[in-house]
Amino acid sequence: MGNNLLKGKRGIIFGALNDMSIAWKVAERAVEEGAIITLSNTPLAVRMGTTNELAEKLNAKLIPADATSVTDLEQVFEQSMEVLGGKIDFVLHSIGMSPNVRKKRPYDDLDYDMLLTTLDISAISFHKMMQVAKKMDAINDYGSVVALSYMAAQRTVFGYNDMADAKSMLESIARSFGYIYGRERNVRVNTISQSPTVTTAGSGVKGMDGLLDFSERMSPLGNATAADCADYCVVMFSDLTRKVTMQNLLHDGGFSSMAMSYRAMEQYNKSFEEFKDENGKIIYG
Amino acid sequence: MGNNLLKGKRGIIFGALNDMSIAWKVAERAVEEGAIITLSNTPLAVRMGTTNELAEKLNAKLIPADATSVTDLEQVFEQSMEVLGGKIDFVLHSIGMSPNVRKKRPYDDLDYDMLLTTLDISAISFHKMMQVAKKMDAINDYGSVVALSYMAAQRTVFGYNDMADAKSMLESIARSFGYIYGRERNVRVNTISQSPTVTTAGSGVKGMDGLLDFSERMSPLGNATAADCADYCVVMFSDLTRKVTMQNLLHDGGFSSMAMSYRAMEQYNKSFEEFKDENGKIIYG
Amino acid sequence: MGNNLLKGKRGIIFGALNDMSIAWKVAERAVEEGAIITLSNTPLAVRMGTTNELAEKLNAKLIPADATSVTDLEQVFEQSMEVLGGKIDFVLHSIGMSPNVRKKRPYDDLDYDMLLTTLDISAISFHKMMQVAKKMDAINDYGSVVALSYMAAQRTVFGYNDMADAKSMLESIARSFGYIYGRERNVRVNTISQSPTVTTAGSGVKGMDGLLDFSERMSPLGNATAADCADYCVVMFSDLTRKVTMQNLLHDGGFSSMAMSYRAMEQYNKSFEEFKDENGKIIYG
Amino acid sequence: MGNNLLKGKRGIIFGALNDMSIAWKVAERAVEEGAIITLSNTPLAVRMGTTNELAEKLNAKLIPADATSVTDLEQVFEQSMEVLGGKIDFVLHSIGMSPNVRKKRPYDDLDYDMLLTTLDISAISFHKMMQVAKKMDAINDYGSVVALSYMAAQRTVFGYNDMADAKSMLESIARSFGYIYGRERNVRVNTISQSPTVTTAGSGVKGMDGLLDFSERMSPLGNATAADCADYCVVMFSDLTRKVTMQNLLHDGGFSSMAMSYRAMEQYNKSFEEFKDENGKIIYG
Repeated sequence: MGNNLLKGKRGIIFGALNDMSIAWKVAERAVEEGAIITLSNTPLAVRMGTTNELAEKLNAKLIPADATSVTDLEQVFEQSMEVLGGKIDFVLHSIGMSPNVRKKRPYDDLDYDMLLTTLDISAISFHKMMQVAKKMDAINDYGSVVALSYMAAQRTVFGYNDMADAKSMLESIARSFGYIYGRERNVRVNTISQSPTVTTAGSGVKGMDGLLDFSERMSPLGNATAADCADYCVVMFSDLTRKVTMQNLLHDGGFSSMAMSYRAMEQYNKSFEEFKDENGKIIYG
Repeated sequence: MGNNLLKGKRGIIFGALNDMSIAWKVAERAVEEGAIITLSNTPLAVRMGTTNELAEKLNAKLIPADATSVTDLEQVFEQSMEVLGGKIDFVLHSIGMSPNVRKKRPYDDLDYDMLLTTLDISAISFHKMMQVAKKMDAINDYGSVVALSYMAAQRTVFGYNDMADAKSMLESIARSFGYIYGRERNVRVNTISQSPTVTTAGSGVKGMDGLLDFSERMSPLGNATAADCADYCVVMFSDLTRKVTMQNLLHDGGFSSMAMSYRAMEQYNKSFEEFKDENGKIIYG
Repeated sequence: MGNNLLKGKRGIIFGALNDMSIAWKVAERAVEEGAIITLSNTPLAVRMGTTNELAEKLNAKLIPADATSVTDLEQVFEQSMEVLGGKIDFVLHSIGMSPNVRKKRPYDDLDYDMLLTTLDISAISFHKMMQVAKKMDAINDYGSVVALSYMAAQRTVFGYNDMADAKSMLESIARSFGYIYGRERNVRVNTISQSPTVTTAGSGVKGMDGLLDFSERMSPLGNATAADCADYCVVMFSDLTRKVTMQNLLHDGGFSSMAMSYRAMEQYNKSFEEFKDENGKIIYG
Repeated sequence: MGNNLLKGKRGIIFGALNDMSIAWKVAERAVEEGAIITLSNTPLAVRMGTTNELAEKLNAKLIPADATSVTDLEQVFEQSMEVLGGKIDFVLHSIGMSPNVRKKRPYDDLDYDMLLTTLDISAISFHKMMQVAKKMDAINDYGSVVALSYMAAQRTVFGYNDMADAKSMLESIARSFGYIYGRERNVRVNTISQSPTVTTAGSGVKGMDGLLDFSERMSPLGNATAADCADYCVVMFSDLTRKVTMQNLLHDGGFSSMAMSYRAMEQYNKSFEEFKDENGKIIYG
């Protein structure tokens, strides 16, 4: 039960794979807030995931498309405008994949063709989406475009590999295109930098369990969940945030503004338990 | 006509002086969204401004208080809980004043007693507000506290003087207290860094007109107005942003992410008009 | 006449085209400080520029190489170690080019093949350089790697186009690789974000003259010149900065920390001269 | 044995208490690089510490002064110019103290008089130093002023308390005064944000041992030591960094650009050792 924050708005949600996906929750919440939407994902993802169920449940058309293909993206916007009955008000980009991560190529042994694929899928697709939309005049004035990012764009997380560089580029594209789309059509473009989240995509990241625990203890409010993120996306799609653009919005329970919390330090210090001397004083290696 | 985003919530709005004040708009919007509120301002401001009218219009109790006085703040929270019938859900801190600016003391000739006053009014009052509230257990779990800031906290604006240092400290207090209030009560604490806004307070800033014009042309979406800011505050008070804390949220039409826009550059270049040579090429000093 | 800051060190300088190039000044200063170096640039640049003169003057071997080619980079490191008599202590990456900028494709009409070329030349080449060096074990422990960047990586400058995204990625690569090269070999990796500088490359940027003037008036110390930058590079190559890594170092006379200076505002306001009323008050559009 | 980087320069070093102090190392290195200097510290510190030994060793005049007293600061600059034979070229501010920390007042139970003392000693003293110097015309054109800061100014470290707010304000003062001193006298003003360092001051910080270990494992180059910091200060005082101003320079082995390193994660995960199930899989709380 929502607040009609997106009543009368039309949106496109890219990247809902299954009910663990952030995009899945965003789609549900957007509809709950009164929006009508279409869904898009790669043909492969459509076959392997359960996006069809979501489409059915939300009564939303599912448009398979490769987000790296300009032609496919044109199709998505054209069909979406047709089925939704007008120009689009909001777009979610929740897309990312690194063949180097999948193939376990460490960052100092990258395959450069794979790197270009990482960039094309995880960052350039965001540019293509907007360039296509702008050329087709497919987004309404005062529309809102959001892409999901991760703090590794600013600070290194071991094992996140070339996805860090892709996310940095993604956030840069938000600024670069946000400038143009803003001045010409009042369309705002932002990224939301989300806590590490247990999704099918996220679960591939090295050492995810420990990282989630650390992040949970570091963040005064705990990690933001996919459901929390969906709420934040709704806010960014609504008319209440019309002057927020070119920003990377940290949505992480406070993690990004912490250097060390008491709880995380306490847990960390337990790792030295066995090295305590007779007075309980920790003997550091 | 709102969306019931703050239905059932109780709030305190500090700093509404007259209908140009951002706090004034926030108060109106909060009530429109279903909140019940109290207002507070200094006894002097209450006499000189028109806060009484606002209180009457919104059917809100106006509690005069010096925000640098712990005792006064205790009164505000106590009376607010009493009149609103329970603990507080959100607080707006929109308070700032520099005697050095008023007395036209340049930044390299500061009066240090005045500097302490600037800090006490514009930054430390925010800490006092939260320390008082926390000791009295006056804010509900998952409550939201927002203070208004300005980008001079990160980047120097000539003439903003010791207010820049006060705003830096204010944003630091948001992080420092946000950590504690978050981990213990899930209360989030953020600052909103607003475009330069024509308010009674803002109008004291040196060269405000030119700055507003420059800022307007630099920002792809134009300057954020007081009304825009009120919308953003509503969002930050609502349950839709429960995992956003310890952040400084730029609300400025994109200004903070711009180094130079075409429009601002074009205007800037006009300043050299008279120095153009016969071929229309600008002759720079 | 130097201070022997780089005495006994071996370096490679990529990207010196002619005597306006920052890399040219860095090469001269490095030698002045006691280093021995090699130079590298593309075969085309070698033919079109005057790098040969520099090589002769500094008694440095010039190794033509395409920095996007792993094989060519291997050659550069191999030959450099051979001719300099040991592993490398410092590397400068001063490489960037955008076919989209050259072909005047605006940012909302990018050619995506050209974008990949922009990224490959301006950002990925930096990764290739380090991956090649690390695999060949070509850089000494405690070595220093620097790439030149520009503030458009953080804040949008109209007309800088896809180079902004490339620079963002470049700075991300510095962090990502800096983590690995640091933990394993104590090699530090940083970017220096330089004032807009009149170089052959820089002169292609739209509206460069006005931008330089604005930037000069905004920066309390004025724009940093190529010669200033060379000094800063020397410092970053020396043993005096051994714990500085994964940083983007702003070298811009203070520009990055300014939102508005008195001098720039004054100049800006001149653009409204003709719109002053009888009292000298500016009439803003 | 230095490189004559500060040959002919005159400096003042505030805050050398004993041979663990960063300021102590800076003083030694500055002299080694050819500078002549004076030392200053509070009368109490002069009695309790061993600054006298340093003064003797370096043949430097020690001028006791309370850095919160404008009169005392005037004395320091006057006597320094007299004894060193001319205007000052560089100044180090290494001063900080919080009575709230000393009295173990937690951040949500601050004593506000003590907070003003924290600010006066740890931040405002920096402003006073520069205001006094500028009024006396005591610093040479192209001089350099550095204050030591800590990353808690940007990201919260539990237990650092009101010192975080003081450091934020300190860094803001560097920008605000840097703008003015730069435009008028080409004097640059920066802060160096140093790794947690075992000094007499640092040792008061809660949980320092664990923090140092964590920080060491997070930083690819390990924590920066006081000696490393002295090298960096020399660089910032030298003529090689003349266009660097209004910056907060992270000097921390890469810590500030890390979100999680492999080594720190591995250590953190050891804290769950006892909670592993029969398959070696960690059972998180």
